Amino acid sequence: MPTFMDVHTGFVNATAEDLRKAHEADLAVEADEMVHFEKAWLDPISGKAFCLSTGPDKEAVMRVHSKAGHATSEVYEVPIEV
Amino acid sequence: MPTFMDVHTGFVNATAEDLRKAHEADLAVEADEMVHFEKAWLDPISGKAFCLSTGPDKEAVMRVHSKAGHATSEVYEVPIEV
Repeated sequence: MPTFMDVHTGFVNATAEDLRKAHEADLAVEADEMVHFEKAWLDPISGKAFCLSTGPDKEAVMRVHSKAGHATSEVYEVPIEV
Repeated sequence: MPTFMDVHTGFVNATAEDLRKAHEADLAVEADEMVHFEKAWLDPISGKAFCLSTGPDKEAVMRVHSKAGHATSEVYEVPIEV
């Protein structure tokens, strides 16, 4: 499965609990899309969040985030890593 | 040490070898700044790259990337992760 990094904005002042809940919302709906969200990082000052996932394609990743209530159009397939 | 995610643009058509060399350039100069680059992901289509690091502050991360020849101003401290 390809790997994806996606970027969210607007999480200003979000807490660890907020991120945990958002991540659990992804996990709860991801199976239908054969996506798995592995990890997420949050900067509560800028409100940026980054999610690392695997899945069949970018659109599937977007649908999971959308169903989980935090849509983003900024999803990058990252086939190269080090 | 705080954790940081930074974002680069302009790596269109970059290869795995290009990313490996860029990462090694970071590793070669990071010690002076007490920074460590742990991981990087690349989307050669959009040219976006994401780097995960630890270090004393955002400015130290920027200085390492700058010395390594691939400066970016887009560095986020990510104290919350899941």
